[in-house]
Amino acid sequence: METVNLEQLLYIIQPFLMIGKNKLKLINSLAQKKYRLKEQSFLAEGDKIVLEVLESEIKVKELFATPDFISANKKYLHNAALVFETTAAEIKKASLLKQPQNCLAICQLPSQPKLPSNPEGIFLFLDGIQDPGNLGTIIRTCDWFGMDYLFCSPGTADVFNPKVIQASMGSFTRVKIIYTPFDALSAYLQKTEIPVYGTFLEGKNIYTENLPDYALIVLGNEGRGIRKEVSDQISFPLNIPSFSQAEKKAESLNVAVSAAIICNEFTRKKFAIRNEN
Amino acid sequence: METVNLEQLLYIIQPFLMIGKNKLKLINSLAQKKYRLKEQSFLAEGDKIVLEVLESEIKVKELFATPDFISANKKYLHNAALVFETTAAEIKKASLLKQPQNCLAICQLPSQPKLPSNPEGIFLFLDGIQDPGNLGTIIRTCDWFGMDYLFCSPGTADVFNPKVIQASMGSFTRVKIIYTPFDALSAYLQKTEIPVYGTFLEGKNIYTENLPDYALIVLGNEGRGIRKEVSDQISFPLNIPSFSQAEKKAESLNVAVSAAIICNEFTRKKFAIRNEN
Repeated sequence: METVNLEQLLYIIQPFLMIGKNKLKLINSLAQKKYRLKEQSFLAEGDKIVLEVLESEIKVKELFATPDFISANKKYLHNAALVFETTAAEIKKASLLKQPQNCLAICQLPSQPKLPSNPEGIFLFLDGIQDPGNLGTIIRTCDWFGMDYLFCSPGTADVFNPKVIQASMGSFTRVKIIYTPFDALSAYLQKTEIPVYGTFLEGKNIYTENLPDYALIVLGNEGRGIRKEVSDQISFPLNIPSFSQAEKKAESLNVAVSAAIICNEFTRKKFAIRNEN
Repeated sequence: METVNLEQLLYIIQPFLMIGKNKLKLINSLAQKKYRLKEQSFLAEGDKIVLEVLESEIKVKELFATPDFISANKKYLHNAALVFETTAAEIKKASLLKQPQNCLAICQLPSQPKLPSNPEGIFLFLDGIQDPGNLGTIIRTCDWFGMDYLFCSPGTADVFNPKVIQASMGSFTRVKIIYTPFDALSAYLQKTEIPVYGTFLEGKNIYTENLPDYALIVLGNEGRGIRKEVSDQISFPLNIPSFSQAEKKAESLNVAVSAAIICNEFTRKKFAIRNEN
């Protein structure tokens, strides 16, 4: 019987561990929306996020993972249609991340969630948020504050952009994200008499206003704010005032920070958690 | 006399409008800290940010700008040692931004601000924040909440990283950012009896705690949180509770969002802006 040394063995096994050229090309293409639509797929990366996806209702078509990841997470693997054992080096080759981890999943693009049949609580409408990091962070914040839905104008960044998925840290699997023109949403919500708020420089002080338990709050694009056709439909303009006493100060807050302060103020008041001192 | 047609004229002028090869190389190198230190320079990009820099005490060594930017902002130009008129195409070539604008400034790396002689108010200490976008956003938030100082552990991202400058939207010219080991800061502040807070999963509810007007609040690294040697010195552990009622929910907030909610809660209470309903 011939013996095989370790070096030869690795040489024999390697081809099975490789992520093929066409697959690499496909993975890379999923950074672009047109290919996500064409392939009806999106990419989830990073151990924590892939595990969240495997535990969610999202269909994982193909999972590429290191032997360590596979043996540590056996109980979740049945949720992936295909599992390929591969190396960290191969994942690095395929990854769109700067610091690739131990797995990478090609997932089925889910269909858009339906509008809530009995909408209640606090909802955000994002009017053209462009930065994927901002969108992902806002999704994570909505999840934290127990907001089930997030509405986005069609011009807002795509939730299935890999950078959004990344920044949302798995929260995109829980928050129902609905892309809708503002008009359609507004017409739908009018039946429920949910008031429409928005942030403006000349709005009323969010800290001193009476905030309702039910509201839709509009946040504008990073540079140009809320579009006129949307702002025309906002009944309650709000403002987060600056506390800087300096002559020169920041002109605005980052939009994901504004979103967080809005969620904080509406939710804190809703739950009547107040400082009594 | 020979006449020159427009095409020839452009050909003649172009070399003067170009940003030279060595300069492009220098600009590019400023993305890296070691070259920023070697050249004692950093890069500011984007019209708004460059204007903020020109209005600040930062020394602009070289300003590259389009004729439009130059004619629109003549009154600020005397703050730049050298001004080079160039084209948008040349700026694009030099730029580290995805969407370059009309100017780009090579600035003198300023010396680190001194510790406040009479520290009062709310201060953050960032214990190893890695993401430049997060650091820049936190600087912008500090500016908004009128916080004059921001303390960072030596392991925190560098404020003069072009991505930090970008995300701070000019606020880095106003907030005094001091890199210091926690021990040194803590020893310094002990004289002033400013209490040290920090965010932990098992901390006390930030919404119901009595928060003081003077405090140092520690925020940890995106992945691993606050280092043990620092957390050992924190007297008041705080927690931002999640409002999600779901079984599966976000495990944490983005650190720039946590910083914003902390600034919001401490400052709001300090200014006694409460909802009376």
